[in-house]
Amino acid sequence: MEYKLLSEINSPKDIKKLDYTKLNELSGEIRYKLIETVSENGGHLASNLGMVELTVALHKVFDSPKDQFVYDVGHQCYTHKLLTGRYESFSTLRTKGGISGFTRPTESEHDIFFSGHSATSVSAGLGLAQAKALKGDRSHVVSVIGDGSFTGGMVFEALNNGGRSKANHIVVLNDNKMSISENVGAFAKYLAVIRSRPQYYSFKANTEKVLNKVPFGEKIVKELYKVKTDIKNKVYEKSTFFEDLGYRYMGPIDGHNIENLCDALQSAKSVNGPVLLHVITVKGKGYEYAEKDPSVFHGISKFDVDTGEAISSSKSYSDKFGETLCDLSKNDESLCAITAAMGIGTGLGKFSGLYPERFFDVGIAEEHAVTFASGLSKNGMKPVFAVYSTFLQRCYDQLIHDVALQKQKVLLAVDRAGFVGEDGETHHGLFDVAFLGTVPGMKVYSPCNFNLLEADLKNALYSEETAVAVRYPRGTENENTKELKSVSFDYSVYGDEKSKTAIVTYGRITAEAIEAVKEIKDAFLVSLNLIKPIPEGVIDLLLGRKRVFFFEEGQKSAGVAEKLGITLLEKGYKGKYSITAVEDKFVEQASVNELLSKYGLNKEAMIKKLSEEF
Amino acid sequence: MEYKLLSEINSPKDIKKLDYTKLNELSGEIRYKLIETVSENGGHLASNLGMVELTVALHKVFDSPKDQFVYDVGHQCYTHKLLTGRYESFSTLRTKGGISGFTRPTESEHDIFFSGHSATSVSAGLGLAQAKALKGDRSHVVSVIGDGSFTGGMVFEALNNGGRSKANHIVVLNDNKMSISENVGAFAKYLAVIRSRPQYYSFKANTEKVLNKVPFGEKIVKELYKVKTDIKNKVYEKSTFFEDLGYRYMGPIDGHNIENLCDALQSAKSVNGPVLLHVITVKGKGYEYAEKDPSVFHGISKFDVDTGEAISSSKSYSDKFGETLCDLSKNDESLCAITAAMGIGTGLGKFSGLYPERFFDVGIAEEHAVTFASGLSKNGMKPVFAVYSTFLQRCYDQLIHDVALQKQKVLLAVDRAGFVGEDGETHHGLFDVAFLGTVPGMKVYSPCNFNLLEADLKNALYSEETAVAVRYPRGTENENTKELKSVSFDYSVYGDEKSKTAIVTYGRITAEAIEAVKEIKDAFLVSLNLIKPIPEGVIDLLLGRKRVFFFEEGQKSAGVAEKLGITLLEKGYKGKYSITAVEDKFVEQASVNELLSKYGLNKEAMIKKLSEEF
Repeated sequence: MEYKLLSEINSPKDIKKLDYTKLNELSGEIRYKLIETVSENGGHLASNLGMVELTVALHKVFDSPKDQFVYDVGHQCYTHKLLTGRYESFSTLRTKGGISGFTRPTESEHDIFFSGHSATSVSAGLGLAQAKALKGDRSHVVSVIGDGSFTGGMVFEALNNGGRSKANHIVVLNDNKMSISENVGAFAKYLAVIRSRPQYYSFKANTEKVLNKVPFGEKIVKELYKVKTDIKNKVYEKSTFFEDLGYRYMGPIDGHNIENLCDALQSAKSVNGPVLLHVITVKGKGYEYAEKDPSVFHGISKFDVDTGEAISSSKSYSDKFGETLCDLSKNDESLCAITAAMGIGTGLGKFSGLYPERFFDVGIAEEHAVTFASGLSKNGMKPVFAVYSTFLQRCYDQLIHDVALQKQKVLLAVDRAGFVGEDGETHHGLFDVAFLGTVPGMKVYSPCNFNLLEADLKNALYSEETAVAVRYPRGTENENTKELKSVSFDYSVYGDEKSKTAIVTYGRITAEAIEAVKEIKDAFLVSLNLIKPIPEGVIDLLLGRKRVFFFEEGQKSAGVAEKLGITLLEKGYKGKYSITAVEDKFVEQASVNELLSKYGLNKEAMIKKLSEEF
Repeated sequence: MEYKLLSEINSPKDIKKLDYTKLNELSGEIRYKLIETVSENGGHLASNLGMVELTVALHKVFDSPKDQFVYDVGHQCYTHKLLTGRYESFSTLRTKGGISGFTRPTESEHDIFFSGHSATSVSAGLGLAQAKALKGDRSHVVSVIGDGSFTGGMVFEALNNGGRSKANHIVVLNDNKMSISENVGAFAKYLAVIRSRPQYYSFKANTEKVLNKVPFGEKIVKELYKVKTDIKNKVYEKSTFFEDLGYRYMGPIDGHNIENLCDALQSAKSVNGPVLLHVITVKGKGYEYAEKDPSVFHGISKFDVDTGEAISSSKSYSDKFGETLCDLSKNDESLCAITAAMGIGTGLGKFSGLYPERFFDVGIAEEHAVTFASGLSKNGMKPVFAVYSTFLQRCYDQLIHDVALQKQKVLLAVDRAGFVGEDGETHHGLFDVAFLGTVPGMKVYSPCNFNLLEADLKNALYSEETAVAVRYPRGTENENTKELKSVSFDYSVYGDEKSKTAIVTYGRITAEAIEAVKEIKDAFLVSLNLIKPIPEGVIDLLLGRKRVFFFEEGQKSAGVAEKLGITLLEKGYKGKYSITAVEDKFVEQASVNELLSKYGLNKEAMIKKLSEEF
């Protein structure tokens, strides 16, 4: 493919000159570029394919970065990147040192907010717009947010405030009927009702289009808008939810028609105060396989463009989790699985088919998920909330107030714990150990292979009395962990028990530590399965040593290494204590192996650390 | 007052026998009991006065605990307690070992969930109801929630799921137009629109009342309900927001008319699936002063029943915070204050009057507050979010993802840090130090008197580059902290610098430590102002000591004591290290002084600890 037009776009200014025909050609090139790059590097495809024309129209109508775009989650910002001076470097997408798969302010002045977690864009956009209003700056802020994110309560909190604000804030609802999987909940049904009345918009769009070409002052347009809203309410009987909240509602319009989009955005721009523009897009638009199966192509690894087939990967912890849950459910009707719009990612696909009445996809609503789970538990069910570590951060208070305090037995299946690789800063699961450690009574397990994962899940469901988290990484197990010698259910050991040097670790990097011990020889490894509380026997195993090295794939602050260290100190340990972990910072994108190396957590780094500090 | 009827109510069964006249008499007695008890013990008055008839009706129509009530926040559950066997012990309300001011399952089988934080009741209730549905149990779950809590996004997450559920879940919206202060936001305006159409309900209520007296089967009632909904939609043109989400909407009805309430609840009970019953109540109902000024009487200390005047208390940290912000705002137009429905409690009353355009009460929406603040900061404002420690738990992910990662300078003014006293388990500010410690780059200060609070706020706003939290307790300062010798901005010392024994602490209990050192003499006190990161000089001051005692008014896990200990250990400290803090548990209600004593954090306990471990 020759990128004739795209290669000439060095900044959004270059788009302004293009007419609609050229903009459509440009969109075609962008789409091709997206497929080409993502098939090589992996990334979010379907969401980005749906956003091509909308992004082109945004840059045609608004002046970034004076006008500011806030992309919710950011997994739909690739076109934005291609149009804002990052075409040349786009092939580095999601690689170490390369372009991020999400918006990243340190990368470009056109990226206003780091993003990666959902439902934040309306709040952030409202803050940006309110600051402009206070300073008398009349430029615009546009929050672009998918219907999937509308299942997150924070959006409602923001709309509740935005609806009474006078700031120039435009919310573009990118409605593709999908979250990562099909969108769920009553609100999604409600959007479907609106979508079924497109005649409403054409009525208004035509009127407004005419008006925008007449050199009326803004005030007159506003007055006319009011009249139209009245007419509309008379004609269609119902106001929309958004109007009830104080937003000017425009839509629904076709999100793949650039001319219509530009007209609508122009109208939105002419309104003072909050506007909600409802745009209908097709997730995966323009790539057959992605249109057909948008949830598979939402976020995807390297794939073959011609066949749409992913390069197959080995069995993952998520798969093992899903299998185990299905097995246990055969004989246990009280077992319920909950996901926050991550049914496939967390390995619950099969469960949802087998036990639909006990499978709850609650939308991107982690807070609700946790408290709902607690309610299920109180009345006798065994709820399992499968969630990525980074998103579990969302429900910290619910874990304290609605689970731990209630003494309800909720099982958290914490997926993507530790480094996740290419998704970068916003997605690494580096905080869960730290914050789960502060939740009273919560027990936390971190298995280092599939067998242990299965055992931990069974133990949590059938032997534990309290809330339990079982955390495991993205990817697959390492076979060498089978060489560990199990001392108790809570921990295993490896190497020379008499050595004065001990290595302590848990989870995935146990495999690295085993290899390190093989090479060092004079070292004794303790691999924790239970990480909160610290198993008592472990303290006794370590007290007499001269040197204890803790390697932790997570934040140092409030991690297990600190916890173990302080316990040793309180018990009078007099030896050397060394911690290798991530220190009070965010971790960049790179492959998991690159990150383990950089942060001193692979075999080589461990050996080096031990030899340096002898 | 003679409690003729109330004293005879030993369980909800005793209510069933009473007719409406008696129930009204009973309500009068309850109201008197509430005023009498709260004027003595302090507590939530206005919210409870508004709930008397509604609670009586709930117990008349439903069978608790088979039917389950979940009270949102729980600050309106006093009548429920009086009707469920706790009349005799009600005078112990909010005292050590006494009746809790919130629902507490360990206290009674009629209390289903601990509560204290808002917007959780619909999620919890839905979980309870869903479990019943799975088990084929046809009894009911009723979530009772105020319109104030509807500003919390989690309610929307729950409604989005509840609207498509088939479980028997009734949501009673107790609409008193108030949060703690006047309710805010677009949704509150929307409720006002519904309230202005009461004729709708009377239409339906009468029809349904007739129907309920006819011995029709449930199915017929359901069919008729559908017809009525159709008629209603024709007549009133608009469906409500709740109907859009899939709830059967009933209301609005008068929340002080027991007969109407019972009819409406009976109707709600006859519907299969989710129902929203909209009840209008008057906050403070029946006590002149509380009706006139419901936000003052929302939560109140001891007061004089005849005059409505509170026993005056000394100047608080909150007052000092509010004053300082007003002073600084005189010459700084970029300063913005944000509160999540706690304008008065956090000391922002005066600021809101002086600078209304820079004062944002966002409703009970802590997540939005933080991300909104970050948007304000990005475009040049200086946002200050004043929030109680326990509610800051709500926005842990927003602090990580939307503030720290964005490197935005948001100032968190964390009020009610440490023990809060009588509000108990759900309200103590014991977690903020732990979880703020895990947020990369976040700095945390914990002043021990007003002067230092002022200095910390100024420093955060005008000298720091990053997000900063300044945390301070409920109540007033202790003058003796002026005897401290300031070593740097970050910490102060007291006592014998040459002593081999050091005490380290921060915040309020510095005052206790000073008194302890005065008595012990051979001890050296370090009081931290900056608690994250630990000031470097402090490590050097401690390394040579023989014994270091850390006293911390907060969770031990991930607290400052652990952080300091681990740093000492890594630096080769060989002495004794002892931590006194709250260990992995929730703390009960009692006065702050009682709790300091129980948890080993007052002068006497410190002296004892040091002498025991010599």
